[in-house]
Amino acid sequence: MPAVDKLLLEEALQDSPQTRSLLSVFEEDAGTLTDYTNQLLQAMQRVYGAQNEMCLATQQLSKQLLAYEKQNFALGKGDEEVISTLHYFSKVVDELNVLHTELAKQLADTMVLPIIQFREKDLTEVSTLKDLFGLASNEHDLSMAKYSKLPKKKENEKVKTEVVKEVAAARRKQHLSSLQYYCALNALQYRKRVAMMEPMIGFAHGQINFFKRGAEMFNQSMDSFLSSVADMVQRSG
Amino acid sequence: MPAVDKLLLEEALQDSPQTRSLLSVFEEDAGTLTDYTNQLLQAMQRVYGAQNEMCLATQQLSKQLLAYEKQNFALGKGDEEVISTLHYFSKVVDELNVLHTELAKQLADTMVLPIIQFREKDLTEVSTLKDLFGLASNEHDLSMAKYSKLPKKKENEKVKTEVVKEVAAARRKQHLSSLQYYCALNALQYRKRVAMMEPMIGFAHGQINFFKRGAEMFNQSMDSFLSSVADMVQRSG
Repeated sequence: MPAVDKLLLEEALQDSPQTRSLLSVFEEDAGTLTDYTNQLLQAMQRVYGAQNEMCLATQQLSKQLLAYEKQNFALGKGDEEVISTLHYFSKVVDELNVLHTELAKQLADTMVLPIIQFREKDLTEVSTLKDLFGLASNEHDLSMAKYSKLPKKKENEKVKTEVVKEVAAARRKQHLSSLQYYCALNALQYRKRVAMMEPMIGFAHGQINFFKRGAEMFNQSMDSFLSSVADMVQRSG
Repeated sequence: MPAVDKLLLEEALQDSPQTRSLLSVFEEDAGTLTDYTNQLLQAMQRVYGAQNEMCLATQQLSKQLLAYEKQNFALGKGDEEVISTLHYFSKVVDELNVLHTELAKQLADTMVLPIIQFREKDLTEVSTLKDLFGLASNEHDLSMAKYSKLPKKKENEKVKTEVVKEVAAARRKQHLSSLQYYCALNALQYRKRVAMMEPMIGFAHGQINFFKRGAEMFNQSMDSFLSSVADMVQRSG
């Protein structure tokens, strides 16, 4: 593990083997980070998907509880008690659904979105600049090869001047693209730590809020309702 | 809606049109209850499925957070802080997973299982006894038809005695199966109220326990950890 934490921009112009070697370390790190980010995003999207499915499932359950009243049972004697109890449970499931929906939204906004943005913005930028740097390096290599193949004769002076100009332009272009690429790789190292921790802060805050509100919702009055329903069931059962 | 709440067993032997008509009301009710129970079971299984998926998703997320350390990043400078923070979050997700797993188990045992048992035991019993009652009624009708077709001649006295015996046996069989069928239909009316309410009591108790333990878990110390991580991110970001 090299004792450096950034690529020095002043090394970019010289483009020495040492600089290239250090660059490859940064590139390897960016590759590992991209793979890991994709796996982490997948795991987070699975949690979000489960949370979303819980919203839909509680919605369906609440509707189904209300639907008891509309069944037109041929024998409805004693059903008033069942209907009112299922109505109450439907309201409980609705309130729970509000909490689940809120948590799903929070997970989307503060867990999944930041890591998607990290991937789409930071990681994609590095990968794009890597491609541009590769193209510029190739162009530079080609113009260098052209220059080295020039015949040494005096009468080709004009052609030579043209090629020298071309080499200089290619070198400027490569230099510029390497500066941008180095900057992006340095910024990635800087962003990496935040990008890894930020989504889990969002996750934890979402859960804290969810449990706090849930504990308030399922309070004493729910307990006493439940024991009265349990009594009713005991009497019938 | 008839003002009766059960089929009278003493009417079963006479099997009058009035009794048959009342029976059809009980049968219609049982049919509606079967349809409704199947829909309710489906909605409850969806909630259980979502809860189970949440267990698997949190398990995967916890593993993925621990995996950061094992990525062999080419550049590991400053990673100790990230690694220890992700370890902490992995522990939080593990504890959350324990709560989710407990809730899933509770929903399986106290919500899904009772309604499955109601369907498999009570509703299936009614449906089986209905079939047996139908078969016995057919047999009785056939032996009655045989009896009515008997020639009136004296010399057939022995055959007649046989057929009369057959009719009596068929009537006894039909009577017995109608008694069992009536009992099951009466019991179903009795079980119906409990069967509809019991799973939701299980559901509510599971949620109460889940939120109570969750609120205890995400306590003050978690808040202070989160604000220290947020500070760290702020400094880096």
